[in-house]
Amino acid sequence: MEQHPFDQALRLEAAGSAQPDTWLGASSAAYWNMVGPFGGTTAATTLRAILLHPALLGEPIALTVNYASALAAGAFSVTARPVRTNRSTQHWMVALSQTDASGVEGVVMTASAVTAARRETWSANDTPMPALRFSEALPRFDFATSEWTQRYDMRAVSGRIPETWDGREDDSLTRLWVRDEPPRPLDFCALAAMSDVFYPRVWLRRATRVPAGTVSITTYFHADSRQLAQCGEGYLLGQARAQAFRNGFFDQSAQLWSAAGTLLATSNQLVYYKE
Amino acid sequence: MEQHPFDQALRLEAAGSAQPDTWLGASSAAYWNMVGPFGGTTAATTLRAILLHPALLGEPIALTVNYASALAAGAFSVTARPVRTNRSTQHWMVALSQTDASGVEGVVMTASAVTAARRETWSANDTPMPALRFSEALPRFDFATSEWTQRYDMRAVSGRIPETWDGREDDSLTRLWVRDEPPRPLDFCALAAMSDVFYPRVWLRRATRVPAGTVSITTYFHADSRQLAQCGEGYLLGQARAQAFRNGFFDQSAQLWSAAGTLLATSNQLVYYKE
Repeated sequence: MEQHPFDQALRLEAAGSAQPDTWLGASSAAYWNMVGPFGGTTAATTLRAILLHPALLGEPIALTVNYASALAAGAFSVTARPVRTNRSTQHWMVALSQTDASGVEGVVMTASAVTAARRETWSANDTPMPALRFSEALPRFDFATSEWTQRYDMRAVSGRIPETWDGREDDSLTRLWVRDEPPRPLDFCALAAMSDVFYPRVWLRRATRVPAGTVSITTYFHADSRQLAQCGEGYLLGQARAQAFRNGFFDQSAQLWSAAGTLLATSNQLVYYKE
Repeated sequence: MEQHPFDQALRLEAAGSAQPDTWLGASSAAYWNMVGPFGGTTAATTLRAILLHPALLGEPIALTVNYASALAAGAFSVTARPVRTNRSTQHWMVALSQTDASGVEGVVMTASAVTAARRETWSANDTPMPALRFSEALPRFDFATSEWTQRYDMRAVSGRIPETWDGREDDSLTRLWVRDEPPRPLDFCALAAMSDVFYPRVWLRRATRVPAGTVSITTYFHADSRQLAQCGEGYLLGQARAQAFRNGFFDQSAQLWSAAGTLLATSNQLVYYKE
Protein backbone atom coordinates (compact mmCIF):
# COMPACT_ATOMS: atom_id res chain seq x y z
CA MET A 1 0.00 0.00 0.00
CA GLU A 2 1.31 3.41 -0.89
CA GLN A 3 2.08 5.72 2.01
CA HIS A 4 -0.13 8.73 2.64
CA PRO A 5 1.48 11.91 1.20
CA PHE A 6 1.77 13.30 4.74
CA ASP A 7 3.74 10.25 5.88
CA GLN A 8 5.89 10.50 2.76
CA ALA A 9 6.56 14.17 3.52
CA LEU A 10 7.59 13.30 7.08
CA ARG A 11 9.88 10.41 6.15
CA LEU A 12 13.09 10.54 8.20
CA GLU A 13 16.06 8.19 8.20
CA ALA A 14 18.51 7.85 11.06
CA ALA A 15 21.79 9.58 10.21
CA GLY A 16 23.72 6.73 11.79
CA SER A 17 25.23 5.75 15.11
CA ALA A 18 27.82 8.55 15.05
CA GLN A 19 24.95 11.09 15.18
CA PRO A 20 22.31 9.40 17.33
CA ASP A 21 20.15 12.57 17.58
CA THR A 22 20.09 13.29 13.84
CA TRP A 23 17.67 12.28 11.08
CA LEU A 24 17.76 12.93 7.35
CA GLY A 25 14.76 13.97 5.27
CA ALA A 26 13.79 15.92 2.19
CA SER A 27 11.31 18.73 1.63
CA SER A 28 8.05 17.61 0.09
CA ALA A 29 6.84 18.73 -3.34
CA ALA A 30 3.37 17.43 -2.44
CA TYR A 31 3.11 20.10 0.29
CA TRP A 32 4.80 22.91 -1.61
CA ASN A 33 3.79 26.44 -0.72
CA MET A 34 4.95 29.57 -2.51
CA VAL A 35 8.66 29.64 -1.64
CA GLY A 36 9.11 26.38 0.26
CA PRO A 37 7.06 23.55 1.74
CA PHE A 38 4.01 24.33 3.90
CA GLY A 39 5.36 25.34 7.32
CA GLY A 40 2.96 22.97 9.06
CA THR A 41 4.68 20.00 7.44
CA THR A 42 8.07 21.24 8.55
CA ALA A 43 6.82 21.78 12.10
CA ALA A 44 5.45 18.23 12.03
CA THR A 45 8.84 16.98 10.82
CA THR A 46 10.62 18.45 13.86
CA LEU A 47 8.01 16.76 16.05
CA ARG A 48 8.47 13.48 14.22
CA ALA A 49 12.23 13.57 14.92
CA ILE A 50 11.38 13.82 18.63
CA LEU A 51 8.83 11.01 18.46
CA LEU A 52 11.38 8.76 16.72
CA HIS A 53 14.03 9.35 19.38
CA PRO A 54 14.76 6.25 21.48
CA ALA A 55 15.02 8.35 24.66
CA LEU A 56 11.48 9.80 24.27
CA LEU A 57 9.46 10.19 27.48
CA GLY A 58 5.69 10.52 27.17
CA GLU A 59 3.78 12.47 24.54
CA PRO A 60 4.02 16.03 23.18
CA ILE A 61 2.40 18.79 25.22
CA ALA A 62 4.11 21.89 23.73
CA LEU A 63 5.94 22.63 20.49
CA THR A 64 7.50 25.91 19.36
CA VAL A 65 8.94 26.20 15.88
CA ASN A 66 10.89 29.21 14.61
CA TYR A 67 11.19 29.62 10.85
CA ALA A 68 14.66 31.07 10.42
CA SER A 69 14.92 30.80 6.66
CA ALA A 70 13.02 29.37 3.69
CA LEU A 71 13.44 25.62 3.35
CA ALA A 72 14.54 24.82 -0.20
CA ALA A 73 13.68 21.78 -2.28
CA GLY A 74 15.92 18.85 -1.42
CA ALA A 75 17.62 17.18 1.52
CA PHE A 76 17.82 18.42 5.09
CA SER A 77 18.89 17.09 8.47
CA VAL A 78 17.04 17.37 11.79
CA THR A 79 18.78 17.08 15.13
CA ALA A 80 16.54 16.55 18.18
CA ARG A 81 18.24 16.49 21.56
CA PRO A 82 16.60 15.74 24.90
CA VAL A 83 18.29 18.43 27.00
CA ARG A 84 16.58 17.57 30.27
CA THR A 85 14.60 14.54 31.35
CA ASN A 86 12.63 14.80 34.58
CA ARG A 87 10.38 12.23 36.22
CA SER A 88 7.36 13.08 34.10
CA THR A 89 8.50 15.77 31.63
CA GLN A 90 11.22 15.98 29.01
CA HIS A 91 12.63 19.07 27.28
CA TRP A 92 13.79 19.05 23.67
CA MET A 93 15.81 21.33 21.43
CA VAL A 94 15.65 20.77 17.70
CA ALA A 95 17.46 22.29 14.73
CA LEU A 96 16.74 21.65 11.07
CA SER A 97 19.66 22.41 8.75
CA GLN A 98 20.14 22.48 5.02
CA THR A 99 23.11 22.97 2.74
CA ASP A 100 22.50 25.85 0.36
CA ALA A 101 23.42 26.13 -3.33
CA SER A 102 26.88 27.45 -2.44
CA GLY A 103 27.57 24.43 -0.21
CA VAL A 104 27.17 26.24 3.11
CA GLU A 105 25.16 24.47 5.82
CA GLY A 106 22.80 26.73 7.73
CA VAL A 107 20.05 26.46 10.32
CA VAL A 108 16.69 26.78 8.57
CA MET A 109 14.45 26.15 11.56
CA THR A 110 14.81 25.80 15.30
CA ALA A 111 12.30 24.22 17.62
CA SER A 112 11.77 23.40 21.24
CA ALA A 113 9.28 20.96 22.67
CA VAL A 114 8.10 19.47 25.92
CA THR A 115 6.87 15.91 26.17
CA ALA A 116 5.22 14.50 29.27
CA ALA A 117 3.74 11.43 30.84
CA ARG A 118 0.23 12.62 31.65
CA ARG A 119 -1.75 11.54 34.67
CA GLU A 120 -5.51 11.66 34.97
CA THR A 121 -6.65 14.76 36.87
CA TRP A 122 -9.64 17.04 37.22
CA SER A 123 -10.15 18.49 33.73
CA ALA A 124 -12.31 21.16 32.11
CA ASN A 125 -12.89 22.42 28.60
CA ASP A 126 -13.33 26.18 28.98
CA THR A 127 -13.48 26.95 25.27
CA PRO A 128 -16.54 25.16 23.96
CA MET A 129 -16.61 24.45 20.26
CA PRO A 130 -18.77 26.94 18.34
CA ALA A 131 -22.17 25.32 17.74
CA LEU A 132 -21.55 24.25 14.15
CA ARG A 133 -22.07 21.00 12.30
CA PHE A 134 -20.13 19.77 9.34
CA SER A 135 -21.97 19.80 6.06
CA GLU A 136 -20.85 18.37 2.72
CA ALA A 137 -22.62 21.36 1.17
CA LEU A 138 -19.89 23.71 2.42
CA PRO A 139 -17.60 24.50 -0.52
CA ARG A 140 -14.00 23.31 -0.34
CA PHE A 141 -11.20 25.87 -0.26
CA ASP A 142 -10.04 26.23 -3.78
CA PHE A 143 -6.67 27.86 -3.63
CA ALA A 144 -4.95 26.23 -6.52
CA THR A 145 -1.84 28.41 -6.48
CA SER A 146 -0.40 26.34 -3.63
CA GLU A 147 0.10 22.60 -3.87
CA TRP A 148 -0.19 22.05 -0.11
CA THR A 149 -3.78 23.28 0.08
CA GLN A 150 -4.74 20.30 -2.14
CA ARG A 151 -3.51 18.00 0.66
CA TYR A 152 -6.27 19.22 2.97
CA ASP A 153 -10.02 19.17 2.71
CA MET A 154 -10.79 22.59 4.18
CA ARG A 155 -14.30 24.03 4.29
CA ALA A 156 -14.74 27.48 5.69
CA VAL A 157 -17.86 28.21 7.69
CA SER A 158 -16.88 31.88 7.97
CA GLY A 159 -13.87 34.00 7.10
CA ARG A 160 -13.24 32.58 3.63
CA ILE A 161 -10.34 33.91 1.60
CA PRO A 162 -11.64 37.20 0.13
CA GLU A 163 -13.02 36.76 -3.38
CA THR A 164 -12.11 40.29 -4.31
CA TRP A 165 -8.97 41.98 -3.02
CA ASP A 166 -10.69 45.32 -2.63
CA GLY A 167 -9.03 46.49 0.58
CA ARG A 168 -12.32 46.44 2.49
CA GLU A 169 -11.51 45.91 6.17
CA ASP A 170 -13.17 43.03 7.96
CA ASP A 171 -12.57 41.12 11.19
CA SER A 172 -9.86 38.43 11.11
CA LEU A 173 -11.88 35.40 12.25
CA THR A 174 -11.98 32.20 10.18
CA ARG A 175 -13.82 29.05 11.17
CA LEU A 176 -13.29 25.98 9.04
CA TRP A 177 -13.57 22.21 8.99
CA VAL A 178 -10.35 20.45 8.08
CA ARG A 179 -9.03 16.97 7.52
CA ASP A 180 -6.17 15.44 5.53
CA GLU A 181 -6.87 14.76 1.85
CA PRO A 182 -6.97 11.81 1.35
CA PRO A 183 -8.26 11.12 4.88
CA ARG A 184 -5.69 9.91 7.42
CA PRO A 185 -6.05 8.96 11.10
CA LEU A 186 -5.23 11.91 13.35
CA ASP A 187 -1.96 11.88 15.29
CA PHE A 188 0.29 14.47 16.93
CA CYS A 189 2.21 15.28 13.74
CA ALA A 190 -1.00 15.84 11.78
CA LEU A 191 -2.38 18.03 14.56
CA ALA A 192 0.84 20.08 14.62
CA ALA A 193 0.53 20.64 10.87
CA MET A 194 -3.19 21.46 11.00
CA SER A 195 -2.48 24.16 13.59
CA ASP A 196 -0.89 26.06 10.73
CA VAL A 197 -3.50 25.65 7.96
CA PHE A 198 -5.08 29.07 8.49
CA TYR A 199 -4.08 31.49 5.74
CA PRO A 200 -2.54 34.80 6.89
CA ARG A 201 -5.09 36.77 8.93
CA VAL A 202 -3.85 40.00 7.36
CA TRP A 203 -5.31 38.89 3.99
CA LEU A 204 -8.76 38.54 5.52
CA ARG A 205 -8.50 41.59 7.76
CA ARG A 206 -7.54 43.92 4.90
CA ALA A 207 -8.79 42.04 1.82
CA THR A 208 -5.31 42.75 0.52
CA ARG A 209 -2.87 40.04 -0.44
CA VAL A 210 0.39 41.34 0.99
CA PRO A 211 3.46 39.11 1.37
CA ALA A 212 3.24 37.27 4.72
CA GLY A 213 4.95 34.32 6.37
CA THR A 214 5.05 32.63 9.77
CA VAL A 215 8.05 33.56 11.91
CA SER A 216 7.26 31.46 14.99
CA ILE A 217 4.46 29.09 15.99
CA THR A 218 3.68 27.54 19.36
CA THR A 219 1.18 24.73 19.72
CA TYR A 220 -0.11 23.24 22.97
CA PHE A 221 -1.53 19.74 22.74
CA HIS A 222 -4.47 19.29 25.11
CA ALA A 223 -5.20 15.73 23.99
CA ASP A 224 -3.32 12.49 24.42
CA SER A 225 -2.81 9.86 21.71
CA ARG A 226 -5.92 7.96 22.82
CA GLN A 227 -8.09 11.05 22.31
CA LEU A 228 -6.46 11.72 18.94
CA ALA A 229 -7.10 8.13 17.87
CA GLN A 230 -10.77 8.61 18.75
CA CYS A 231 -10.95 11.33 16.09
CA GLY A 232 -10.04 8.81 13.41
CA GLU A 233 -10.16 10.37 9.96
CA GLY A 234 -12.89 12.82 10.91
CA TYR A 235 -12.99 16.55 10.30
CA LEU A 236 -11.71 18.91 12.98
CA LEU A 237 -13.18 22.35 13.52
CA GLY A 238 -10.53 25.05 13.46
CA GLN A 239 -10.73 28.71 14.33
CA ALA A 240 -8.16 31.48 13.99
CA ARG A 241 -8.04 35.22 14.58
CA ALA A 242 -5.49 37.95 15.11
CA GLN A 243 -5.15 40.11 18.20
CA ALA A 244 -2.83 42.82 16.86
CA PHE A 245 -1.16 43.92 13.63
CA ARG A 246 1.78 46.23 14.22
CA ASN A 247 4.62 47.42 12.01
CA GLY A 248 5.38 44.26 10.09
CA PHE A 249 4.14 41.52 12.45
CA PHE A 250 0.80 40.19 13.61
CA ASP A 251 -0.23 37.31 15.83
CA GLN A 252 -2.65 34.56 14.97
CA SER A 253 -4.41 32.65 17.72
CA ALA A 254 -6.03 29.30 16.85
CA GLN A 255 -8.07 26.47 18.34
CA LEU A 256 -8.74 22.99 16.97
CA TRP A 257 -11.64 20.85 18.21
CA SER A 258 -12.65 17.31 17.40
CA ALA A 259 -16.09 17.06 15.78
CA ALA A 260 -17.26 15.75 19.17
CA GLY A 261 -16.25 19.08 20.76
CA THR A 262 -12.98 18.21 22.51
CA LEU A 263 -10.44 21.04 22.36
CA LEU A 264 -7.44 19.14 20.98
CA ALA A 265 -4.92 21.94 20.51
CA THR A 266 -4.46 25.67 20.93
CA SER A 267 -1.87 27.42 18.84
CA ASN A 268 -0.38 30.87 18.44
CA GLN A 269 1.87 32.22 15.77
CA LEU A 270 3.67 35.42 14.92
CA VAL A 271 3.53 36.31 11.25
CA TYR A 272 5.58 38.72 9.20
CA TYR A 273 3.75 40.95 6.72
CA LYS A 274 4.66 43.74 4.35
CA GLU A 275 3.16 47.19 3.70
CA MET B 1 21.87 55.54 43.25
CA GLU B 2 20.93 52.01 44.10
CA GLN B 3 19.80 49.84 41.21
CA HIS B 4 16.15 48.83 40.99
CA PRO B 5 15.65 45.26 42.34
CA PHE B 6 14.61 44.14 38.84
CA ASP B 7 17.88 45.40 37.36
CA GLN B 8 19.78 43.76 40.20
CA ALA B 9 17.98 40.47 39.51
CA LEU B 10 18.89 40.69 35.83
CA ARG B 11 22.56 41.53 36.35
CA LEU B 12 24.74 39.56 33.95
CA GLU B 13 28.50 39.61 33.50
CA ALA B 14 30.28 38.51 30.35
CA ALA B 15 31.91 35.10 30.89
CA GLY B 16 34.97 36.26 28.98
CA SER B 17 36.37 36.24 25.48
CA ALA B 18 36.69 32.43 25.34
CA GLN B 19 32.87 32.18 25.65
CA PRO B 20 31.58 35.22 23.75
CA ASP B 21 27.92 34.05 23.89
CA THR B 22 27.88 33.35 27.63
CA TRP B 23 26.93 35.50 30.61
CA LEU B 24 27.05 34.79 34.34
CA GLY B 25 24.30 35.69 36.79
CA ALA B 26 22.72 34.64 40.06
CA SER B 27 19.13 33.90 41.01
CA SER B 28 17.45 36.70 42.90
CA ALA B 29 16.23 36.43 46.48
CA ALA B 30 14.19 39.61 45.96
CA TYR B 31 12.03 37.76 43.39
CA TRP B 32 11.88 34.43 45.20
CA ASN B 33 8.83 32.29 44.57
CA MET B 34 8.04 29.02 46.33
CA VAL B 35 10.80 26.73 45.02
CA GLY B 36 12.91 29.13 42.96
CA PRO B 37 12.85 32.68 41.62
CA PHE B 38 9.72 34.01 39.87
CA GLY B 39 9.78 32.53 36.35
CA GLY B 40 9.12 35.94 34.82
CA THR B 41 12.47 37.18 36.10
CA THR B 42 14.26 34.17 34.64
CA ALA B 43 12.51 34.66 31.28
CA ALA B 44 13.60 38.29 31.38
CA THR B 45 17.17 37.17 32.12
CA THR B 46 17.30 35.06 28.96
CA LEU B 47 16.04 38.07 27.02
CA ARG B 48 18.62 40.31 28.65
CA ALA B 49 21.41 37.97 27.51
CA ILE B 50 20.16 38.43 23.94
CA LEU B 51 19.89 42.21 24.30
CA LEU B 52 23.47 42.38 25.63
CA HIS B 53 24.86 40.40 22.69
CA PRO B 54 27.08 42.50 20.41
CA ALA B 55 25.61 40.79 17.30
CA LEU B 56 22.01 41.80 18.16
CA LEU B 57 19.80 42.85 15.25
CA GLY B 58 16.67 44.87 16.01
CA GLU B 59 14.31 44.39 18.93
CA PRO B 60 12.49 41.37 20.40
CA ILE B 61 9.30 40.27 18.68
CA ALA B 62 8.93 36.72 20.08
CA LEU B 63 10.30 34.87 23.11
CA THR B 64 9.66 31.27 24.18
CA VAL B 65 11.03 30.02 27.47
CA ASN B 66 10.86 26.39 28.62
CA TYR B 67 11.30 25.73 32.32
CA ALA B 68 13.19 22.45 32.39
CA SER B 69 14.00 22.34 36.09
CA ALA B 70 13.73 24.52 39.19
CA LEU B 71 16.39 27.21 39.34
CA ALA B 72 18.17 27.03 42.69
CA ALA B 73 19.60 29.88 44.75
CA GLY B 74 23.04 30.87 43.50
CA ALA B 75 25.04 31.27 40.32
CA PHE B 76 24.02 30.31 36.81
CA SER B 77 25.26 30.86 33.26
CA VAL B 78 23.25 31.90 30.21
CA THR B 79 24.38 31.21 26.67
CA ALA B 80 22.60 33.12 23.90
CA ARG B 81 23.56 32.28 20.33
CA PRO B 82 22.32 34.01 17.19
CA VAL B 83 21.75 30.92 15.01
CA ARG B 84 20.54 32.78 11.94
CA THR B 85 20.72 36.43 10.96
CA ASN B 86 18.63 37.57 8.01
CA ARG B 87 18.24 41.04 6.54
CA SER B 88 15.61 42.12 9.03
CA THR B 89 15.16 39.19 11.47
CA GLN B 90 17.47 37.25 13.75
CA HIS B 91 16.89 33.87 15.43
CA TRP B 92 18.26 33.04 18.88
CA MET B 93 18.71 29.90 20.94
CA VAL B 94 19.37 30.30 24.63
CA ALA B 95 20.21 27.88 27.43
CA LEU B 96 20.48 28.66 31.12
CA SER B 97 22.58 26.18 33.10
CA GLN B 98 23.37 25.69 36.75
CA THR B 99 25.67 23.39 38.67
CA ASP B 100 23.71 21.39 41.23
CA ALA B 101 24.71 20.45 44.78
CA SER B 102 26.50 17.33 43.55
CA GLY B 103 28.62 19.39 41.13
CA VAL B 104 26.80 18.34 37.96
CA GLU B 105 25.99 21.08 35.45
CA GLY B 106 22.52 20.82 33.91
CA VAL B 107 20.22 22.82 31.67
CA VAL B 108 17.60 24.54 33.81
CA MET B 109 15.87 26.51 31.09
CA THR B 110 15.93 26.73 27.32
CA ALA B 111 14.66 29.62 25.26
CA SER B 112 14.31 30.73 21.69
CA ALA B 113 13.68 34.23 20.48
CA VAL B 114 13.27 36.26 17.34
CA THR B 115 14.45 39.85 17.08
CA ALA B 116 13.65 42.11 14.15
CA ALA B 117 14.17 45.51 12.65
CA ARG B 118 10.59 46.73 12.31
CA ARG B 119 9.33 48.91 9.52
CA GLU B 120 6.27 51.14 9.67
CA THR B 121 3.26 49.44 8.05
CA TRP B 122 -0.51 49.47 8.16
CA SER B 123 -1.38 48.49 11.73
CA ALA B 124 -4.50 47.62 13.72
CA ASN B 125 -5.30 46.85 17.32
CA ASP B 126 -7.99 44.17 17.15
CA THR B 127 -8.12 43.49 20.87
CA PRO B 128 -9.27 46.70 22.48
CA MET B 129 -8.45 47.16 26.13
CA PRO B 130 -11.44 46.44 28.39
CA ALA B 131 -13.05 49.76 29.32
CA LEU B 132 -11.47 50.10 32.76
CA ARG B 133 -9.69 52.91 34.54
CA PHE B 134 -7.04 52.57 37.17
CA SER B 135 -8.13 53.53 40.66
CA GLU B 136 -5.96 53.85 43.77
CA ALA B 137 -8.99 52.50 45.65
CA LEU B 138 -8.43 49.02 44.18
CA PRO B 139 -6.78 46.86 46.85
CA ARG B 140 -3.24 45.63 46.20
CA PHE B 141 -2.64 41.90 45.90
CA ASP B 142 -1.52 40.77 49.28
CA PHE B 143 0.11 37.44 48.81
CA ALA B 144 2.82 37.56 51.39
CA THR B 145 3.90 33.92 51.04
CA SER B 146 5.96 34.81 47.96
CA GLU B 147 8.66 37.44 48.00
CA TRP B 148 8.30 38.23 44.27
CA THR B 149 4.72 39.44 44.57
CA GLN B 150 6.05 42.28 46.74
CA ARG B 151 8.09 43.47 43.74
CA TYR B 152 4.90 44.28 41.82
CA ASP B 153 2.03 46.60 42.53
CA MET B 154 -0.85 44.42 41.30
CA ARG B 155 -4.47 45.43 41.65
CA ALA B 156 -7.09 43.02 40.47
CA VAL B 157 -10.22 44.43 38.88
CA SER B 158 -11.73 40.95 38.64
CA GLY B 159 -10.56 37.41 39.24
CA ARG B 160 -8.79 38.00 42.55
CA ILE B 161 -7.09 35.09 44.26
CA PRO B 162 -9.92 33.23 46.02
CA GLU B 163 -10.32 34.27 49.64
CA THR B 164 -11.64 30.86 50.60
CA TRP B 165 -10.36 27.67 49.01
CA ASP B 166 -13.78 26.10 48.97
CA GLY B 167 -13.59 24.28 45.63
CA ARG B 168 -16.36 26.40 44.12
CA GLU B 169 -15.84 26.47 40.36
CA ASP B 170 -15.60 29.85 38.65
CA ASP B 171 -14.36 31.13 35.32
CA SER B 172 -10.60 31.60 34.95
CA LEU B 173 -10.46 35.28 33.94
CA THR B 174 -8.35 37.79 35.87
CA ARG B 175 -7.98 41.46 34.99
CA LEU B 176 -5.45 43.47 36.92
CA TRP B 177 -3.37 46.61 36.85
CA VAL B 178 0.34 46.02 37.29
CA ARG B 179 3.59 47.93 37.54
CA ASP B 180 6.97 47.32 39.12
CA GLU B 181 7.30 48.15 42.83
CA PRO B 182 9.07 50.50 43.20
CA PRO B 183 8.06 51.99 39.83
CA ARG B 184 10.51 51.50 36.96
CA PRO B 185 10.36 52.61 33.30
CA LEU B 186 8.94 49.86 31.10
CA ASP B 187 11.29 47.97 28.77
CA PHE B 188 11.28 44.61 26.98
CA CYS B 189 12.66 42.68 29.96
CA ALA B 190 10.05 44.13 32.31
CA LEU B 191 7.30 43.33 29.80
CA ALA B 192 8.56 39.75 29.44
CA ALA B 193 8.43 39.34 33.22
CA MET B 194 5.00 40.97 33.57
CA SER B 195 3.58 38.52 31.03
CA ASP B 196 4.02 35.92 33.75
CA VAL B 197 2.54 37.72 36.79
CA PHE B 198 -0.84 35.99 36.59
CA TYR B 199 -1.20 33.37 39.31
CA PRO B 200 -2.14 29.85 38.11
CA ARG B 201 -5.60 29.92 36.48
CA VAL B 202 -6.40 26.55 38.03
CA TRP B 203 -6.45 28.17 41.49
CA LEU B 204 -9.12 30.63 40.37
CA ARG B 205 -11.05 28.14 38.24
CA ARG B 206 -11.37 25.60 41.06
CA ALA B 207 -10.86 27.70 44.18
CA THR B 208 -8.39 24.99 45.08
CA ARG B 209 -4.70 25.61 45.64
CA VAL B 210 -3.11 22.65 43.90
CA PRO B 211 0.61 22.55 43.05
CA ALA B 212 1.15 24.28 39.68
CA GLY B 213 4.08 25.64 37.72
CA THR B 214 4.79 27.06 34.26
CA VAL B 215 6.32 24.59 31.82
CA SER B 216 6.61 26.84 28.78
CA ILE B 217 5.74 30.47 28.02
CA THR B 218 5.67 32.31 24.70
CA THR B 219 5.38 36.08 24.53
CA TYR B 220 4.88 38.18 21.40
CA PHE B 221 5.94 41.80 21.65
CA HIS B 222 3.64 44.04 19.63
CA ALA B 223 5.36 47.27 20.68
CA ASP B 224 8.75 48.70 19.92
CA SER B 225 11.08 50.38 22.42
CA ARG B 226 9.66 53.82 21.63
CA GLN B 227 6.14 52.67 22.52
CA LEU B 228 7.42 51.00 25.69
CA ALA B 229 9.23 54.19 26.68
CA GLN B 230 5.96 56.10 26.28
CA CYS B 231 4.48 53.93 29.05
CA GLY B 232 7.05 55.27 31.49
CA GLU B 233 6.42 53.96 34.99
CA GLY B 234 2.67 53.71 34.47
CA TYR B 235 0.40 50.79 35.24
CA LEU B 236 -0.37 48.26 32.52
CA LEU B 237 -3.69 46.46 32.29
CA GLY B 238 -3.24 42.71 32.16
CA GLN B 239 -5.74 39.96 31.46
CA ALA B 240 -5.36 36.18 31.61
CA ARG B 241 -7.64 33.20 31.15
CA ALA B 242 -7.35 29.47 30.44
CA GLN B 243 -8.77 27.69 27.42
CA ALA B 244 -8.45 24.08 28.58
CA PHE B 245 -7.42 22.05 31.64
CA ARG B 246 -6.60 18.45 30.78
CA ASN B 247 -4.84 15.69 32.69
CA GLY B 248 -2.08 17.65 34.37
CA PHE B 249 -1.66 20.68 32.09
CA PHE B 250 -3.61 23.81 31.27
CA ASP B 251 -2.92 26.81 29.06
CA GLN B 252 -3.03 30.43 30.09
CA SER B 253 -3.58 33.13 27.51
CA ALA B 254 -2.71 36.73 28.43
CA GLN B 255 -2.76 40.28 27.08
CA LEU B 256 -1.01 43.39 28.38
CA TRP B 257 -2.13 46.89 27.40
CA SER B 258 -0.66 50.29 28.19
CA ALA B 259 -3.01 52.51 30.19
CA ALA B 260 -3.55 54.40 26.92
CA GLY B 261 -4.96 51.21 25.36
CA THR B 262 -2.08 49.99 23.19
CA LEU B 263 -1.79 46.19 23.15
CA LEU B 264 1.88 45.81 24.09
CA ALA B 265 2.20 42.03 24.36
CA THR B 266 0.23 38.82 24.05
CA SER B 267 1.46 35.76 25.88
CA ASN B 268 0.57 32.11 26.23
CA GLN B 269 1.82 29.57 28.66
CA LEU B 270 1.39 25.90 29.43
CA VAL B 271 1.18 25.12 33.12
CA TYR B 272 1.57 21.88 35.02
CA TYR B 273 -0.94 21.14 37.78
CA LYS B 274 -1.64 18.27 40.14
CA GLU B 275 -4.83 16.45 41.10
